[in-house]
Amino acid sequence: MKRVMIVVAYDGTNYCGWQVQPNGITIQEVLERHLSELLKEPVSVLGASRTDAGVHALGNAAVFDTNSRMPGEKISYALNQRLPEDIRIQESKEVPLDFHPRYQKSEKTYEYRILNRRFPIPTERFYSYFTYVPLDVEKMREAAEHLIGEHDFKSFCGTGAQVKTTVRNVTGLTIQKNGDEIIIRVTGMGFLYNMVRIIAGTLMEVGCGKYPPVYVKEILEARDRKTAGNTAPARGLTLVGVRYFSDETRY
Amino acid sequence: MKRVMIVVAYDGTNYCGWQVQPNGITIQEVLERHLSELLKEPVSVLGASRTDAGVHALGNAAVFDTNSRMPGEKISYALNQRLPEDIRIQESKEVPLDFHPRYQKSEKTYEYRILNRRFPIPTERFYSYFTYVPLDVEKMREAAEHLIGEHDFKSFCGTGAQVKTTVRNVTGLTIQKNGDEIIIRVTGMGFLYNMVRIIAGTLMEVGCGKYPPVYVKEILEARDRKTAGNTAPARGLTLVGVRYFSDETRY
Repeated sequence: MKRVMIVVAYDGTNYCGWQVQPNGITIQEVLERHLSELLKEPVSVLGASRTDAGVHALGNAAVFDTNSRMPGEKISYALNQRLPEDIRIQESKEVPLDFHPRYQKSEKTYEYRILNRRFPIPTERFYSYFTYVPLDVEKMREAAEHLIGEHDFKSFCGTGAQVKTTVRNVTGLTIQKNGDEIIIRVTGMGFLYNMVRIIAGTLMEVGCGKYPPVYVKEILEARDRKTAGNTAPARGLTLVGVRYFSDETRY
Repeated sequence: MKRVMIVVAYDGTNYCGWQVQPNGITIQEVLERHLSELLKEPVSVLGASRTDAGVHALGNAAVFDTNSRMPGEKISYALNQRLPEDIRIQESKEVPLDFHPRYQKSEKTYEYRILNRRFPIPTERFYSYFTYVPLDVEKMREAAEHLIGEHDFKSFCGTGAQVKTTVRNVTGLTIQKNGDEIIIRVTGMGFLYNMVRIIAGTLMEVGCGKYPPVYVKEILEARDRKTAGNTAPARGLTLVGVRYFSDETRY
C-alpha cells in the first residue's frame, strides 16, 4: 500500500463545498468516485481544507491510500482525463504512510477578491465579490495590521464550530490593489470556521468607513462574533495553496 | 426621439454570440427584450462588434433610439436591474442622432488569453485557451511584428465572409506574459471575420515551433486562408473596448 498526495484546483461555483454531505455534490465525492474507478478499488480522500460551498481552490492538498501499481506521479494525468472540467489535479506524488494533510505542520494561503467599481464585470462574477461602495484600501491595511500575529480570533469564528481553542496565528495579511480589484491575501497555520470570510467582511466595513481601523482591536478583545463584520460571500474566496514544512514545495 | 449609446460587458459563454439568430439566445436579443420592457416601446439595438458565440466583452458599444423621457445616463442603472448576471451595462449616454456604431471612425481592442502550463486552472476555463505545449513568447513577438500595419489579411479571414476588401490596418499587436498566462492584445480600425482568432492561432503555432516567425510574412503574401494557423477557440477572446475618435473616452 502507498499514500498519495494530490494538489487539487477547482471552481467551487457548482459544488456544495469539499466535504461529502447528503444534500449536494462535493469535490471530495467526485474525486473519490473517479479515483475508485481509475484505481479499481474503493478510495477515500482526506483533504487539508474543507472549503465551503462556492469557495475555489488553486491548490488544496489531499491524500488517499491505494494498492494500485500506478506510479504516484502518473495519477494526476490519468485522473484529469476522467474529472469534470471544473476540477483539475495539479500534481500527484507518493508521501510517507504517516503523512496527514491536516495534522502535519503547514501554512495555508487564501485570497479574497473584491471588485470595487461602478458596475460589475460579468466574466468575474463567480470569482470576486462586487461592491460599488468605494473602499479605502489604506484604512483596510491599517485595520489588517491589528490582525497579524497570534490572537484569540473568537470574534472571527462562524457559529456552530466546535474547537478547543480559538487562538490562531495569522502570519501574513496583505491588501493589494490592481486597478478596481482589491485582493486580501491571508496566510496562517490554521483558520477557524469562516475566519477568512469574516476578516474580509470586517475589512470591507472598515474600508467603507463604517468604523475606524482601530476598532478591529476592540473586535478582537470582545471575543464576540456579533462585534465583527458580515461573513463575506463565498465566491470571492480562493484557497491559493497549502505549504507543508516537511516538504518545501509551495503551490 | 433620442439616440443612446450603451457600453456592454458580457460573459459570452452561454450565448450564441451578439447578433440575433434563430438557433439560440444572443446578447442583442436579451438587450432588446429588456430595453423594450424598460422603455415600454419596441427597441432595436445596433452593436459595434458582432462577437461570435463564446466570445466575451468588457466594452462592446451599441446604440438604440427611444422616445422615452428617461435620461440617457440613467438607463444603465435601470437596465442592469433587469439584465441577467452575465450582461452588465458599463455606461449609457445620449449621442447625436446620426451616430452609427459601425460606420463611425473607431478603433477596437481585443485580447486573446492563453494559459500555458502543465494542467488547466478550472476557474479560468471559460476565459482563456489552455495549452500545455510550451510557447516561445519571443518568437510569437517576432512573428507579430510582421502583422502590424496595413496589409491584405485575406489569409486571416474566416471563410464565408463577404467583404469588399480584405485590407485592414492593425495599429497595435503586443504579447504580454504574466506567469503562465500569455495575452495577445490587438488593436485596429476594423477586423475581418475571425481575424483575431486566426492571428492568435497562427501566433501559437509559431510559439510552439511549427514554423519560424518569418513564415507569417509568407502567410500574408499567400492571401490564402489555408496557409495560416487554426482559428483559436472563442473562449480565449475578449473585446476589451471600442474607442470612437469623435468621443475621446476609452473603455
